[in-house]
Amino acid sequence: MAKVGVVLSGCGVHDGSEIHEAVLTLLHLDKAGQEIIPLAPNILQSQVIDHLNQEEIERENRDLLVEAARITRGDIQSLDTVNKNELDAIILPGGAGAIKNLTNYAFIQENCKINPQVQNLIEEMIDLGKPVGAICISPLVVARALVDTDYTPRLTVGKDCEVAQYIQEELNAVHIESKVSEVVVDEDLKIVTTPAYMLAESISNIDTGIKSLVDNVIKLI
Amino acid sequence: MAKVGVVLSGCGVHDGSEIHEAVLTLLHLDKAGQEIIPLAPNILQSQVIDHLNQEEIERENRDLLVEAARITRGDIQSLDTVNKNELDAIILPGGAGAIKNLTNYAFIQENCKINPQVQNLIEEMIDLGKPVGAICISPLVVARALVDTDYTPRLTVGKDCEVAQYIQEELNAVHIESKVSEVVVDEDLKIVTTPAYMLAESISNIDTGIKSLVDNVIKLI
Repeated sequence: MAKVGVVLSGCGVHDGSEIHEAVLTLLHLDKAGQEIIPLAPNILQSQVIDHLNQEEIERENRDLLVEAARITRGDIQSLDTVNKNELDAIILPGGAGAIKNLTNYAFIQENCKINPQVQNLIEEMIDLGKPVGAICISPLVVARALVDTDYTPRLTVGKDCEVAQYIQEELNAVHIESKVSEVVVDEDLKIVTTPAYMLAESISNIDTGIKSLVDNVIKLI
Repeated sequence: MAKVGVVLSGCGVHDGSEIHEAVLTLLHLDKAGQEIIPLAPNILQSQVIDHLNQEEIERENRDLLVEAARITRGDIQSLDTVNKNELDAIILPGGAGAIKNLTNYAFIQENCKINPQVQNLIEEMIDLGKPVGAICISPLVVARALVDTDYTPRLTVGKDCEVAQYIQEELNAVHIESKVSEVVVDEDLKIVTTPAYMLAESISNIDTGIKSLVDNVIKLI
């Protein structure tokens, strides 16, 4: 039984982790008998979005770790305190939290910043040859984490699009087009990615790709 | 393709809908090719609970419908405006929202109250012979909705426990013990129930029961 960190960025597609992607990641890891270590940075969310009308609720502040704990029924560790040596792999579900909280790509495209703890975690996993899975828009976080290294990750966010071009042109990664049910596996760096809601229109659409991502991450451990 | 209402009570096990149960309900309905109609009452949540330490955040108010929209990526209707005639069945996932927002059983056991729109919806479905599914602690909501009728629903919250006794003794329902992977089907009233996190310790544990609940609800339409 391996220990797989699942890195969350809040709770909800527009300001945190995409809930379906996060839950299906937990489901398939648990079905495969792996130990799940839910993780999140202990920071404020950059925004709170009303998920009914998609507008920002400007008066509200929410703590990312506390909100992410909703998805994991309270079982979550801060990136401040986690023992990274214990992790055998990590997976980052998608959602706007990846580009609003883990990075700031949603707000500033030029030289977008990444949370230093998230960057350290991803770099350390890759340095140690441990697998990293990333779903939906989270491959951008992985590419950003590695932009100042010699690594050139091969990954997918689905079809050619603004995000794919940014990953390729600004983050020095190689973008591979893929379908929603597919994964792209970078065998050298042990990075596994799948487009999920970058392409999908329904929850059953993303289930195949996320199961395959989880299976491939486990195979690479 | 049938239209199946999924009645949510917020977003998070301690003050709203249990997220895994809600997402797996959506997954199995979508896999079975049914049209999903997410629903919630347009009311304030009775509490906001910090899911990291399980304490109430007393200064906060959250709108139930807006928070439930996180689980459904914004696709949700208020019980104020839904056309009930269009629904072929409904399913209520669990979570403390069922006993804090849809009913107030968590706070007042004697003569606990139920949200009138939720009561009307459940009663109308049963009156019209349309199936009602209820997961985890939500069978209590169904029993409470029917307590003043001539119906005597047969349902499960898993093992004998305080909730099971309340359902049986105060709400005039018949409680049937069951395992986490099982469903109890009341063929006469077309009520399907499964214990999920009343008994389960992990997400893969609840998946079998929820898939079976969805399959049985569809079969009864």
